[in-house]
Amino acid sequence: MTSARANPLLSDRDTDFQLYEVLDAASLCALPDFAEHSRETFELVLGNVRRFSREVLFPTYRMMDAEPPSFRDGRVHVNPLMRRLYPGLVELGLLTATRPPEVGGQQLPLTVASVASAYLMAANLSAYGYVGLTIGAAHLLEVFGSPWLREEFMARLYRGEWTGTMALTEPQAGSSLADVKTRATPAPDGTYRITGSKIFISGADQDFTENVVHLTLARIDGAPPGTRGISLFAVPTRRPEGGRWVDNDVQVAGVIHKIGWKGIPSCVLSYGEAGDCRGWLVGPENRGLACMFQMMNEARIMVGLNGVSTASVAYHEALEYARSRPQGRPAGAKDLSQPQTAIIEHADVRRMLLRQKAIVEGGLSLLLAASWQADLAGHAPEEEARRRAGLLLDLLTPVAKTFPAEKGYEANALALQVHGGYGYSSEYLPEAWLRDQKLNSIHEGTTGIQGLDLLGRKVVAAGGEALRIFSEEVAATVARARRAGVEPGWCTAMERTVEVVGELTLALGSMGMAGEVEQMLRHSADFMELFSITAVAWRWLAQAAAAREGLARGGAGRDFYEGKLCAAQYWFSVEVPRVPHLVELCRSGEDSYTRMHPEWF
Amino acid sequence: MTSARANPLLSDRDTDFQLYEVLDAASLCALPDFAEHSRETFELVLGNVRRFSREVLFPTYRMMDAEPPSFRDGRVHVNPLMRRLYPGLVELGLLTATRPPEVGGQQLPLTVASVASAYLMAANLSAYGYVGLTIGAAHLLEVFGSPWLREEFMARLYRGEWTGTMALTEPQAGSSLADVKTRATPAPDGTYRITGSKIFISGADQDFTENVVHLTLARIDGAPPGTRGISLFAVPTRRPEGGRWVDNDVQVAGVIHKIGWKGIPSCVLSYGEAGDCRGWLVGPENRGLACMFQMMNEARIMVGLNGVSTASVAYHEALEYARSRPQGRPAGAKDLSQPQTAIIEHADVRRMLLRQKAIVEGGLSLLLAASWQADLAGHAPEEEARRRAGLLLDLLTPVAKTFPAEKGYEANALALQVHGGYGYSSEYLPEAWLRDQKLNSIHEGTTGIQGLDLLGRKVVAAGGEALRIFSEEVAATVARARRAGVEPGWCTAMERTVEVVGELTLALGSMGMAGEVEQMLRHSADFMELFSITAVAWRWLAQAAAAREGLARGGAGRDFYEGKLCAAQYWFSVEVPRVPHLVELCRSGEDSYTRMHPEWF
Repeated sequence: MTSARANPLLSDRDTDFQLYEVLDAASLCALPDFAEHSRETFELVLGNVRRFSREVLFPTYRMMDAEPPSFRDGRVHVNPLMRRLYPGLVELGLLTATRPPEVGGQQLPLTVASVASAYLMAANLSAYGYVGLTIGAAHLLEVFGSPWLREEFMARLYRGEWTGTMALTEPQAGSSLADVKTRATPAPDGTYRITGSKIFISGADQDFTENVVHLTLARIDGAPPGTRGISLFAVPTRRPEGGRWVDNDVQVAGVIHKIGWKGIPSCVLSYGEAGDCRGWLVGPENRGLACMFQMMNEARIMVGLNGVSTASVAYHEALEYARSRPQGRPAGAKDLSQPQTAIIEHADVRRMLLRQKAIVEGGLSLLLAASWQADLAGHAPEEEARRRAGLLLDLLTPVAKTFPAEKGYEANALALQVHGGYGYSSEYLPEAWLRDQKLNSIHEGTTGIQGLDLLGRKVVAAGGEALRIFSEEVAATVARARRAGVEPGWCTAMERTVEVVGELTLALGSMGMAGEVEQMLRHSADFMELFSITAVAWRWLAQAAAAREGLARGGAGRDFYEGKLCAAQYWFSVEVPRVPHLVELCRSGEDSYTRMHPEWF
Repeated sequence: MTSARANPLLSDRDTDFQLYEVLDAASLCALPDFAEHSRETFELVLGNVRRFSREVLFPTYRMMDAEPPSFRDGRVHVNPLMRRLYPGLVELGLLTATRPPEVGGQQLPLTVASVASAYLMAANLSAYGYVGLTIGAAHLLEVFGSPWLREEFMARLYRGEWTGTMALTEPQAGSSLADVKTRATPAPDGTYRITGSKIFISGADQDFTENVVHLTLARIDGAPPGTRGISLFAVPTRRPEGGRWVDNDVQVAGVIHKIGWKGIPSCVLSYGEAGDCRGWLVGPENRGLACMFQMMNEARIMVGLNGVSTASVAYHEALEYARSRPQGRPAGAKDLSQPQTAIIEHADVRRMLLRQKAIVEGGLSLLLAASWQADLAGHAPEEEARRRAGLLLDLLTPVAKTFPAEKGYEANALALQVHGGYGYSSEYLPEAWLRDQKLNSIHEGTTGIQGLDLLGRKVVAAGGEALRIFSEEVAATVARARRAGVEPGWCTAMERTVEVVGELTLALGSMGMAGEVEQMLRHSADFMELFSITAVAWRWLAQAAAAREGLARGGAGRDFYEGKLCAAQYWFSVEVPRVPHLVELCRSGEDSYTRMHPEWF
C-alpha cells in the first residue's frame, strides 16, 4: 500500500529551481568543455532520467528489497530484475555522462549529472549502485591506467559490459587504511600476484555481466609500512589469457547480510587462494591511496547525494500520506459531527514535514554547490579558478557527505513517524528507506572519519585558504540576498555565524600548531555539526534569495516560493541559533569523554 | 557473532546504585503496604530476574526476531519458544509482582519491579511484552471489574492461564480516540454484542495459552459522540457458555508485518462478524476512556522503561565491542609497528559511548523516579502525600515515555555506528534493537501526543501545582548535591533551568487562558525536548550527588563513581545549555510551520 498519488522521488519544480534559479546551470555552458551543452540538452537528459526513474526503476525497488542476492556454489546471484535494469541504465548514457568524448562520454556538468543521479538513487539506490561503482572504477582507470588497461578494462566498464568495485576495507583494518595487508608480488610478466582478503565490497559479484574489475589497494612486497606503501591494482574476476578470459582466482568468501541496500551484495573477497590471482598496477607504485582518494572524494559526494535522495523519496511519501490521511481535528475544534481533518493540518505533523523539507532541499542545494565547484575545478579555463574551486570542493566534501547521512537519517525517521503505526510495518516503504539510509554514516569513511578530515585537514588547509574562499562565497550570497530583499536578520545571522566559525577555526588551528592535537580534534563531531548547520544555512539563504527574486517577477507559482521562505525561516530560527553552543564546546575543550577512562564505563 | 563477554543487559552495579544510593529503596518498606519487604526480598527477586533474563530469555531473542509469528487458517502461531518462556515468566511471579496479596500478589514496590522489568525487556522485549499486556488487562479488571469478571477473567490472567490485550486503536481513528466507532449493543443477558474492528493489537492471538481477553473500547448504542461516549469492555476470544468455553466471534483479520518486536504479533481484530461477539462492561458506562487511561499511564511508564532497556542492551554490546575491537592508533601516534589500539581509545568513539551511557542511565533514573512517585501515590498513608505524588507522576509520565523513545533511538543508532560496517549487518544485534526501539515513539500515544499532553495538560494542571512540586523535588536534589560537594556550576545551572522552565510555562499557560491555544501548543515538541533535558539533568544531578557521597565513603569502586561524574558533566555541558534556545522557540511563537500551507510544500 503506497499512497494514492505516485511518489515523484524528488520535486521537479525544486530541482529546476536549484539548477536554474538558485544556480545558473546554463552559464556552465560558457566553459569550453561544456560548450556543446545548453539548457535544452540538460532538460533532455533529465527528462529521460526522470521518466526512467519513475516508470522503470522505482517499481522494482520493493521487489529488490524483498529478494536480496543469494550466495550459492561460490557465486552471487542477484535479483533477476537487474538483467533488465542494468542495460536500461547503460542505455541512458549514465556510465559516461560526465566523461569526455574521447572515452565515449557526453561531458555533462556534474551539477546536472548530480540531479540525474539523485532521481535514480531515490528510485532504486541499489540498482544505481552498480552504476556508481562502475563509474568510480572506470574513472580511476581513465586517469591512472595504462593504455592497455584503458582499452581492455576501462572501455568495457564504460560500455556497460562489465561492472567495477572499489576494494579498500580489510577485516582487521576497517577505517585504518594504514593497516592494509593485502600483498602484491611482482611477477616476471609485469603483473602482480595478489593475495589477501577484503570485506564489505559492494557489487563484488553478480550474474548480469560477464566480469567484474576490483580496484584494489595492496602492498607491493618490500613497500614501506603505513599509507605510503599502498599501491592500487586492477584485479578482474576473469582475466585475459591467450585470447580467452579465464578465472583469476578471486573468490567470494561470503556475503554480508546487510540491513538495507538489499539489491546489491556486500561481499567478503579472497584473492589468490590458489596463488594465481593477477593484478595490474594502476598509477605509480606506493601512490595507491592518493589515486584512490581522487575517486573517494567523488564517492563521498555520491554518498551525500544518496543521503539526500533517500530522505527525499521518504519525505514525498510522508507528504502525500499526511495530505490524504484524515485523523483528529484542529486544536480547540471539538465538533465531532465534522469529518476528521488531514493530519497535515496538525502543527506537529507540519513541523515534521518542514524539517524533512529543510534537510532534503537544503542538503540537495549543498550537494549541487559542491558539484558546481567540481565542475569549475575540472573545467574552468584559468588555473587559479580551478585551484580555488578545488580547495572549496575539498572543504565541502566531508560536510556534503555527512550532513545528508546524519540529518537525512533523522528525516527518514520522521517520515516513518508521520505514518504512525503503519510506518512501523513493512507494508509501507518508509522503514525500508530508513534501513537504506543508515549505511551512509558508515561507508566511504564514517561520520567520525569525516569529522577528523574536516577539522584536522580541510578547514586548516593552505593556511585556512579554503575557509576564506568559503567565506567569500557566503558573502556573495548574502549580498544577493540583501539585493533580493531577504529578511535582514537572516543575512546578519549568516555573516555572524561565518565569522564565528572562522574565529573558532583559527583558535583550534593554533592549538594544533602548538602540538595540542588531541584537544584540537576532541570535538570534531561538534565542529562537523556546526559547520554543517552553517553550510546549509548558506544554501537556504541562496534559496531564499532566489525565491524572493521569483516572487518579485510575479506571476503564478507563489506557493512554491512561499514554501521556500518558510523552510529558510525554519533553518535560521531553529538550527542556526544552535551554533554558539557548539562553538563553545569546541573552544572550551569540554573534557567529559576525554577524562572518561575505558574502565569507568 | 556477538561479543566475547556476555552482554549484561543492564549493569547490576548501576541498578543497585540507582535503587540504594541515588534512591533509598529500602525506605519504601516503611510504608505499611510494603512492610513485608526488605532489601533482602528485593535482592532475591532481582537475583532471580537477572539470572532468568540472562540465561533463559536473552538466548532466545535472536531466534524470536528471526522467526516471527505466522498467520494460518485464521489463527496466529507464535514462535514455539514461547510455550516454554511464558510459564517461566509466570513462575517468576511477574504477573502479580506489584499486586496485593488479595489477588495473589507479592506487593512489590513498582520502583523495584521496574528494575526487574528492565532486565526482562532488555533480554527479550517481545517475550516480556505478553506479560506487560496481561498485567495491564488484569489490573483493569482488578480495579473496575465486577466480582464475576475478577473471578472468571482476572484470576486466570494473573495465574498465567490466559493472556490479555488493550484494544483501543481503530483503522479510521488512530490517535483520535474521539472517533472510535466499535459498537456495543446491550443484550438481555446483561452483556453486550460487540461489532467493529481494531488495529495494531499486540498479542491479540497466540497459541501458548487457551484464551485471550481483549480490554476493548466501544460505544454503547445511543452514547454521546466523542470521548464521553466511550465504554470499556472485556471481550474474550473464547467465552463461557453452559459450562463450556466457546468461540466468541472475535476474529484475527490479519497480522501486521512489524519491523521489530517480532516475537509478538500485531493484529487486526474483527468483532462480531457473525453477530455473536459478547463483551462484558468494565467500569461505568461512558467512562471507558478514564478507566483505560489509568492503565495507559502505567503502560506509558512501561514504554519508557522499554526504551531505556532497548538502549541499554545495545549500549553494553557497543561497549564490549569498542573494548575488544582493535583499529587505528591515537591521534598523532604514527608508529605502525605498534599494534592497533582498541577503538574505545578514540575520542569520538568514547563520545558515542558516553552519550549512550548518559541517555541510558539518565533515562533509567527518570523511570525510577516516576516509579517511586507511583509507589507513593498508591501506598503513602497520608492522602496529601498520595495526591502530591500523583500529580508529580502525571507530570513525569509523558516525559518518561518520550525521552527514552526519542533519545533511546539515537543511542541505539550510535550503538550500531560504533560497530561500523559490521553494525550494518544482521549478523550483529544492534540493528535488531534499533528496529525494536522505533516503535516506542509511536505506540501508547505518539511523541506528538505526549508533547500535547505535557504542555496542554500536565504542566498547567491544578494551576501549575505539579510543576511546583517538581521544582521542590529538584530543589531538594540540589541541596543534597551541594552537601555532597558536587560541582557548584551544575547546581546553579539546575536551579536556573528549572526557573526558566517555570517562567516559560507561566507565559504559555497565560496564552492558553487567553484563548491562544494554537500558539500555546505550537512548539509542544520543543517544550517536550527542553523539559526532558531538564528532568534528566535532575536525575544526573542526583546521581552525581550519590557518586560524590560514594567517593567520600572511600574504599574500592572509585571507577564507577568517576564514570557517573563524567556522564553528569557531559549532560550539564552538552545538553543543559540547549535549553535557552528551545525556550526561545516556544516563547517567541516562531511560526515557520504554522505559516506553511499544505500546498506550499
